Amino acid sequence: MKQYNLCFLGFGKVGRALARLLTAKAEDLREAYGIEYRITGVASRTIGWQAKADGFDLATLGTNNSLKTGSTSQGISEWLKESKADVVFETTSLNPDSGQPAIDYLRAVLQSGAHAITANKGVLVYGFQELDQLARAGGKQFLFESAVLDSAPVFSLFRETLPAVKLRSFSGIFSSTTNIIIETMEAGRTFAEGLKTAQELGVTETDPSHDIDGWDATVKVCALANVLMNVPLKPAEVARSGIRELNPNQLQRARAEGKPFKLVARASRQQDGKISAIVRPEQIGPLEPLGNVRGTSLAIHFELDMMPGLTVTSHRPNLQSTAYGLLADFINAVRE
Amino acid sequence: MKQYNLCFLGFGKVGRALARLLTAKAEDLREAYGIEYRITGVASRTIGWQAKADGFDLATLGTNNSLKTGSTSQGISEWLKESKADVVFETTSLNPDSGQPAIDYLRAVLQSGAHAITANKGVLVYGFQELDQLARAGGKQFLFESAVLDSAPVFSLFRETLPAVKLRSFSGIFSSTTNIIIETMEAGRTFAEGLKTAQELGVTETDPSHDIDGWDATVKVCALANVLMNVPLKPAEVARSGIRELNPNQLQRARAEGKPFKLVARASRQQDGKISAIVRPEQIGPLEPLGNVRGTSLAIHFELDMMPGLTVTSHRPNLQSTAYGLLADFINAVRE
Repeated sequence: MKQYNLCFLGFGKVGRALARLLTAKAEDLREAYGIEYRITGVASRTIGWQAKADGFDLATLGTNNSLKTGSTSQGISEWLKESKADVVFETTSLNPDSGQPAIDYLRAVLQSGAHAITANKGVLVYGFQELDQLARAGGKQFLFESAVLDSAPVFSLFRETLPAVKLRSFSGIFSSTTNIIIETMEAGRTFAEGLKTAQELGVTETDPSHDIDGWDATVKVCALANVLMNVPLKPAEVARSGIRELNPNQLQRARAEGKPFKLVARASRQQDGKISAIVRPEQIGPLEPLGNVRGTSLAIHFELDMMPGLTVTSHRPNLQSTAYGLLADFINAVRE
Repeated sequence: MKQYNLCFLGFGKVGRALARLLTAKAEDLREAYGIEYRITGVASRTIGWQAKADGFDLATLGTNNSLKTGSTSQGISEWLKESKADVVFETTSLNPDSGQPAIDYLRAVLQSGAHAITANKGVLVYGFQELDQLARAGGKQFLFESAVLDSAPVFSLFRETLPAVKLRSFSGIFSSTTNIIIETMEAGRTFAEGLKTAQELGVTETDPSHDIDGWDATVKVCALANVLMNVPLKPAEVARSGIRELNPNQLQRARAEGKPFKLVARASRQQDGKISAIVRPEQIGPLEPLGNVRGTSLAIHFELDMMPGLTVTSHRPNLQSTAYGLLADFINAVRE
């Protein structure tokens, strides 16, 4: 049995869902993996850098009173020290233009000797190579399963289950907001109504233009190319068009034909080793690999040297699914 | 760099494809995983137990002349000893009623201190618990990714990427022969023509009634329940009906409705912990998780406590894909 000090950097919806999940799975972790834990650090813009070396009370974590029982650190270095962090879950909000300040935070985490786990796709675009090398050099883990396709195994799929394959290309539907807006318009309602539905479901970025204009999908394509193809693709290199130009007639006609529009992201390795990547609305027939992805479901399709096609589809992932991706990373980081 | 002595127990289509793949990936194995190998044993009904401690010539392996250059052992124990086996790939033909003699072979392999890798689903139905315990006790690996859904990650998905989940139920399309027969009849041709097409594609069991009557899917459901749900389900406990009773009119009508028939296998965990399992033709709509699986493609859909639905679809796997599943098991068995 080994006890780990866990710290939350960012404590919004996903962080709180992870705290609940850790409580719910505590017995499983102990019995199946010999893992015990306490939460010794919580940090966010609103509460600052809170640390409590003997552990916060899990039952009341998330209420402001509980979080005030710790000491307040001056910044991340002091916080990592005072919390004696073994594992840090980083879920701060995304900066799609730089991945900051999350990259600086994760660098500090790895330099302090803790495992770094993030749900932050921007980090993978701008900091993957550096953080991955830093983690390897220190014998620690840098993991990020929830960054793309929620908790559905994508990065761990290649890391653990598909050794010695070459990824030739991939395509995916990475944004449920655009699915929902398109489907709402197919049903004769407006773009605005579709967006409202997506926002009510909680699947939309804070600034919805990130989804609508294809930025979310673009950042994910870059994250995947960085990690799975080892090519540092940047958003500016992706040919990107969003769903604003689609009109209701066009969408309804496509749907009636049985080939509805979806916002599809594609990347493929060229002869010269470079990646060609595109995000755009495409008509997809029902028998194509991404053909049955609708609503809040997401999918990725891989073409590999060893397999003609492999598709992973995540149906209606929820907040707990996202939190589970972080939990799975934690278990994989510390188990043998 | 570590050198492994590899042995083939069964040397038919899959074994030979694996030998070719090992040659093609030799450089990758060395550079990415520090793995070198030679093939020191090959055994089959036609050639007997051939061993060659300094390695068979890979370039000519598969020709009878090459295989006669080794010594002939009297049986598996002597063969394992003479070949100094580190890893054995077992691909003998399936006995769906007992899993034998493959279980006896794999027991001998593990007892000799080698890793045991099999593509044999029958073994998982009748011998999983015993062989798994034997492997753990000896610190060796017993792996079998190719037994279901070719090389698409299913067993390694749960072993490596989805820790601490509970599998509530799964459904799948596990037999491409039945897909192809149904699709041929939908197109107005006969059952016999469909079977002939499937046989020409090389996807049919030696005795095609194993596919047609749902035995193949039934054995796979049992294999999955044994490994992923840890319940020793036997074929007799599966409510099984095949595709013989389907008539062309019915199939064409279903297809015209947009809900064609497929031979679907389902298993779910009941309140009392037992598994309820069924294999039967069902009409599947295009937006359902298995809705876009046609031809030689295969798929499995999981319902998990942590994720509402996760589908893995393998599109048109080929002989190399099956062989890759065995290669991936080998790499996973020996890498840290």
